[in-house]
Amino acid sequence: MGLMSETLTQILIPLAALIGIGFALFQWFLVSKVRVSRGLDNGYKDRLIEEDEQEEGIDTDDAVDKCAEIQNAISVGATSFLFTEYKYLGIFTAVFGVIIFLFLGSVKGFSTKSEPCTYNKGNLCKPALANAIFSTIAFWLGAVTSVLSGFLGMKIATYANARTTLEARKSVGKAFITAFRSGAVMGFLLAANGLLVLYVSINLFKLYYGDDWEGLFESITGYGLGGSSMALFGRVGGGIYTKAADVGADLVGKVERNIPEDDPRNPAVIADNVGDNVGDIAGMGSDLFGSYAESSCAALFVASISSFGTSHDFSAMSYPLIISSMGIIVCLITTLFATDMFEIKNVTEIEPSLKRQLLISTILMTAGIGMVTFFALPSEFTLFDFGKEKVVKHWHLFFCVSIGLWAGLVIGYTTEYYTSNAYSPVKDVADSCRTGAATNVIFGLALGYKSVIIPIFAIAIAIYVSFSLAAMYGISVAALGMLSTIATGLAIDAYGPISDNAGGIAEMAGMSHTIRERTDALDAAGNTTAAIGKGFAIGSAALVSLALFGAYVSRAGIESVDVLTPKVFIGLIVGAMLPYWFSAMTMKSVGSAALKMVEEVRRQFNTIPGLMDGTAKPDYEMCVKISTDASLKEMIPPGALVMLTPLIAGTFFGVETLSGVLAGSLVSGVQVAISASNTGGAWDNAKKYIEAGASEHARSLGPKGSDAHKAAVIGDTVGDPLKDTSGPSLNILIKLMAVESLVFAPFFAAHGGLLFKWL
Amino acid sequence: MGLMSETLTQILIPLAALIGIGFALFQWFLVSKVRVSRGLDNGYKDRLIEEDEQEEGIDTDDAVDKCAEIQNAISVGATSFLFTEYKYLGIFTAVFGVIIFLFLGSVKGFSTKSEPCTYNKGNLCKPALANAIFSTIAFWLGAVTSVLSGFLGMKIATYANARTTLEARKSVGKAFITAFRSGAVMGFLLAANGLLVLYVSINLFKLYYGDDWEGLFESITGYGLGGSSMALFGRVGGGIYTKAADVGADLVGKVERNIPEDDPRNPAVIADNVGDNVGDIAGMGSDLFGSYAESSCAALFVASISSFGTSHDFSAMSYPLIISSMGIIVCLITTLFATDMFEIKNVTEIEPSLKRQLLISTILMTAGIGMVTFFALPSEFTLFDFGKEKVVKHWHLFFCVSIGLWAGLVIGYTTEYYTSNAYSPVKDVADSCRTGAATNVIFGLALGYKSVIIPIFAIAIAIYVSFSLAAMYGISVAALGMLSTIATGLAIDAYGPISDNAGGIAEMAGMSHTIRERTDALDAAGNTTAAIGKGFAIGSAALVSLALFGAYVSRAGIESVDVLTPKVFIGLIVGAMLPYWFSAMTMKSVGSAALKMVEEVRRQFNTIPGLMDGTAKPDYEMCVKISTDASLKEMIPPGALVMLTPLIAGTFFGVETLSGVLAGSLVSGVQVAISASNTGGAWDNAKKYIEAGASEHARSLGPKGSDAHKAAVIGDTVGDPLKDTSGPSLNILIKLMAVESLVFAPFFAAHGGLLFKWL
Repeated sequence: MGLMSETLTQILIPLAALIGIGFALFQWFLVSKVRVSRGLDNGYKDRLIEEDEQEEGIDTDDAVDKCAEIQNAISVGATSFLFTEYKYLGIFTAVFGVIIFLFLGSVKGFSTKSEPCTYNKGNLCKPALANAIFSTIAFWLGAVTSVLSGFLGMKIATYANARTTLEARKSVGKAFITAFRSGAVMGFLLAANGLLVLYVSINLFKLYYGDDWEGLFESITGYGLGGSSMALFGRVGGGIYTKAADVGADLVGKVERNIPEDDPRNPAVIADNVGDNVGDIAGMGSDLFGSYAESSCAALFVASISSFGTSHDFSAMSYPLIISSMGIIVCLITTLFATDMFEIKNVTEIEPSLKRQLLISTILMTAGIGMVTFFALPSEFTLFDFGKEKVVKHWHLFFCVSIGLWAGLVIGYTTEYYTSNAYSPVKDVADSCRTGAATNVIFGLALGYKSVIIPIFAIAIAIYVSFSLAAMYGISVAALGMLSTIATGLAIDAYGPISDNAGGIAEMAGMSHTIRERTDALDAAGNTTAAIGKGFAIGSAALVSLALFGAYVSRAGIESVDVLTPKVFIGLIVGAMLPYWFSAMTMKSVGSAALKMVEEVRRQFNTIPGLMDGTAKPDYEMCVKISTDASLKEMIPPGALVMLTPLIAGTFFGVETLSGVLAGSLVSGVQVAISASNTGGAWDNAKKYIEAGASEHARSLGPKGSDAHKAAVIGDTVGDPLKDTSGPSLNILIKLMAVESLVFAPFFAAHGGLLFKWL
Repeated sequence: MGLMSETLTQILIPLAALIGIGFALFQWFLVSKVRVSRGLDNGYKDRLIEEDEQEEGIDTDDAVDKCAEIQNAISVGATSFLFTEYKYLGIFTAVFGVIIFLFLGSVKGFSTKSEPCTYNKGNLCKPALANAIFSTIAFWLGAVTSVLSGFLGMKIATYANARTTLEARKSVGKAFITAFRSGAVMGFLLAANGLLVLYVSINLFKLYYGDDWEGLFESITGYGLGGSSMALFGRVGGGIYTKAADVGADLVGKVERNIPEDDPRNPAVIADNVGDNVGDIAGMGSDLFGSYAESSCAALFVASISSFGTSHDFSAMSYPLIISSMGIIVCLITTLFATDMFEIKNVTEIEPSLKRQLLISTILMTAGIGMVTFFALPSEFTLFDFGKEKVVKHWHLFFCVSIGLWAGLVIGYTTEYYTSNAYSPVKDVADSCRTGAATNVIFGLALGYKSVIIPIFAIAIAIYVSFSLAAMYGISVAALGMLSTIATGLAIDAYGPISDNAGGIAEMAGMSHTIRERTDALDAAGNTTAAIGKGFAIGSAALVSLALFGAYVSRAGIESVDVLTPKVFIGLIVGAMLPYWFSAMTMKSVGSAALKMVEEVRRQFNTIPGLMDGTAKPDYEMCVKISTDASLKEMIPPGALVMLTPLIAGTFFGVETLSGVLAGSLVSGVQVAISASNTGGAWDNAKKYIEAGASEHARSLGPKGSDAHKAAVIGDTVGDPLKDTSGPSLNILIKLMAVESLVFAPFFAAHGGLLFKWL
């Protein structure tokens, strides 16, 4: 037994979660002090402190009114879209819950008799029917928590965007803090909420399961499945929504009509801003929550069939949850560095400050992991390693968690290098715009391909070390390590779309050039942090999927996944194809929806008199409707591909082929996802680099409207679906197929492989 | 024993090869009857039969002179480039041959003592040193044959291009036959030559090895390595050469100066046409020769350790060679259908005629396989299956070979569907040009991703069936089945660049619009056939690599390639990354070389007075030099990546990690390669679709110079490096790493995995 008693564990976990929630609410309170209403007293007495920079548009109450109005429109649009989406997801969740119940219930013919345990030999475990019921409940809980995470994130983001704009009137530092604090609200709420629900569920399930931890943690895996399946639709639907609007708005507004981005005359501008919130915020929130839930579930499942589980050591068993609890505390301290210890005075300080957040949280967390490992774990124990037992020391686990954490930092920094316009890769891409859009696209694609090298080596090293030290449990806690600083990761990630929205609001409210420049600088940093966030999401997804894959193999009773058997190999090659099929679907969806949007925007420009002069208002609603309809319709085929593949592969081809599919989609999907999101991020920032014209080189390519800039806009538009739709959805593809296979493993093992049985 | 005696086998194989060579020479003779010289008697008396279509530029002797002059310039340029390339390759081949000798010789410390055989227990085999020597010799033979294949292909192509142009004056049908016959020369020379050299080598090696077939066929695998390593540099170097020139010429000529493609005023135009011959012809020739050599070697190696080898049944042992012999005869008959049985009267008949070639050869070959299998093989025998023995009936092998053959047809037809502008996918891409280059790129990428689905399923089914029926031997003969009609495949593939060149020559010689339209139609079909050829190349590469991989695993003595071991998994994920790393290098190389070309072309336009009016000649030499220098310099890093990865992985990480690397690069590389070449082909044909304006829809997007057309040109330019440089080089990446691993397997097994030994 470790040094921590069960009672202490039972106190500390919920306490950390509550601290996290409290801190989030406090940050929210600070953000709320920025008032979006007329009158000079908007909370801070020091408003308009930089009087010398006062320009037309800054100080009018009209601008504030307009901000409030736009914010409201965005918030209403986002809420209404999410509610419509949730209606469909509600039906899906209900139906899929029933499928889980029926499939798992049928494993032992819905028998209510207790069975001998699979791993903890000699003991009696609860019937398979209980597993079916509790897996379904866990699935629903995961789905609800995921949806809640996304929704809360959207709420705070739409609450913060106009406030960031207004703060930008004072200084770039104040605007930064507002955006960052709002991101932190989302990060902490999500991390703490995910932990709390999981903790409570385990304790409630225990009331029924008692000492049958094998069954308890098997059914808890449904929580991960619920979280990720919502994330899939959130990412795909939100991604199509946001990029259809963005691409459509750009193609007509920027390219044909030569009006700036986010110009209020553009009919698709509200849909575009709504999209940032439903796609990049709500989708990302659900996604990272899913990763977090799945890696916890994978770790708990493996632990339950190891000595932690068989000897009923609750503190050691809760190690994954304690890591997450420690993560919340560490992130809390880290956040104070950004909001209270340093002040941003210049736009060039934004990115270093965000990078510092990553570094600080990683260093602090390494110490935190050391403490947790020392206190919660016995100094030696055995772990389940595909049927064998592996003797492990507690400091082995320290290395597993830490290497995941540091691999995350490496991925984050690499992503920053390849997508920030402070370094040569993006500058080279910008430079290639000199010879037109074609070279820009070629260089951008090459950049994306190149950017996978270091992250893959980082992931490979993390996998090798954690796998060798502690088998599948090592991998799952490495994933948790990477996600332990999720609150900070989400804060800097959510910061991006909030700044993007803030810029949009500034433009639409007719604020001055200075304000727009500040929000643009915040946004450029935001593109990089968004790419970093995606890097974390995909890196953790790779580890999580492998852990889930291992758990699936254990649960399905497969002895080895030998590539050189026909069943496994065909799975491997078809699995490696799936990311391409999926990307083809999502990109085509964005393309088609964008074409519809283009037609509508053109129609409005052509038929509404006075629209270009600004005397008439466009019909924003129509564009919102196009995005909504397109995304809800188009998310079904890719969603079905992901949800049905494991079911079809497992049922008709059996557990071996399915294991090949999982491995193939994992190793191939990671590459596609990383390259897609980095390519997109780089193109976006190459464009911003030319627009900002901050160096001699950048000015030689600009200004806005030059041929090079036009070429850069084309790259940016191509990158939109890559970085915000297909790329980030792919991590969910690989995770979700793995967790679904894990949940359904008993069914596939019992009744799967029909096709080969028939032949 | 089968029905065929050893004597008959020894007669039939070289006979078939000699028939193939004779047929090729006869086709060459027919092509040579088209005279590229002044005077009305240019061989055919029916010249200028369509007098009504006579236009300015058709009938002047000046035009003929000009054709001859341009042809000569292209031929000289291509020859000089290839000789320069071969000089470097000669050094590489010499050095790498020594490396092979040293590595393999060191396995048993350069001992000259005979050893007990590994598989054929109880017998004595030749010493490891002999293996080192003969592997090196086989490597050199493969390299020389590969280089010869590429060189001969280039020679006939540059011989045929102007002749095709001149024939286009008579009719599209005559031009088609000239181009197709020339392609056939290449196809038959290559297939027959490859077979003959392999056959002769085996018989010569046998003089030393005698009854030690294990050692004999182990060392023969060096032949595949030699072939593929030349192919790698040929593909990469040639690909960079051709696309640097093409992209550079287009960016300045078409986009900036608004002059047509292949306009003689464009300084890069000769380099562009030279590029088609060194990249698409010589590179492709070496590539398919490599696949052919490797699949034969893989099959022979597995057979040598099966009952064929241990019972010394030469006819059964030669089954792979007899299949290829039958393929030559079948292709000969098939070719007559295209050149003598049907006549092309209309441009719309070109593609169906080429498709028919595929279908006819596949049907005839299926019967041929049946015959060969029945006569050459015993009705029952045992095959080596990773240490076990598998009892196989001869009709099992009939299915293995046939399914490979038919999978090739499916891949070919799918590729045609996705890249021909007769079907909706390309039309959709063309349509997306309406909204600009960005949507064109998005739709094109999505098309490429989607086009992998059916080929992957076809490959997966072929693998499952052949793997299940006859283990690794099944896979290698399935690959051979796909390649058995290589002569026809190469004929329709080489037809593409020849037509492309013919069009270029027509433009440069100032021929009339009608002629150019005809060559354009030939060229559009050529884009599709080039994509089909690449489809075959990658499909066969997938099967070949798997077969080689299996042979490597046997030779390295690995028991299973279990994904769920850390060493294998890190290999798998890093292997899946390699195609991205490789593509990043090659695309960036094309991009940078193109930028240099752009600068030079711009410089010439700006500094040479009278260039735009056509009164002064550009400095073609300078552009040829830029392409040459760039390709020779830039082919080194990607070449090194491919050649060094197996050596590093095997030496430092050991045979298990290397097996993961091979599997990962295989399943990931196939997808990247297929999607890249189909995307590029589709963009090229979408552009041609708009230019040709053959339908109401196409005309609504055109004409040349419209916004939609400009967008299509951008897509085409992006596609160039994808379809002609990075995509087609990837098949070589996966094959070459596999065959290299196979050759070095004894060394890795004996001395590899240093890193893990140190740790």
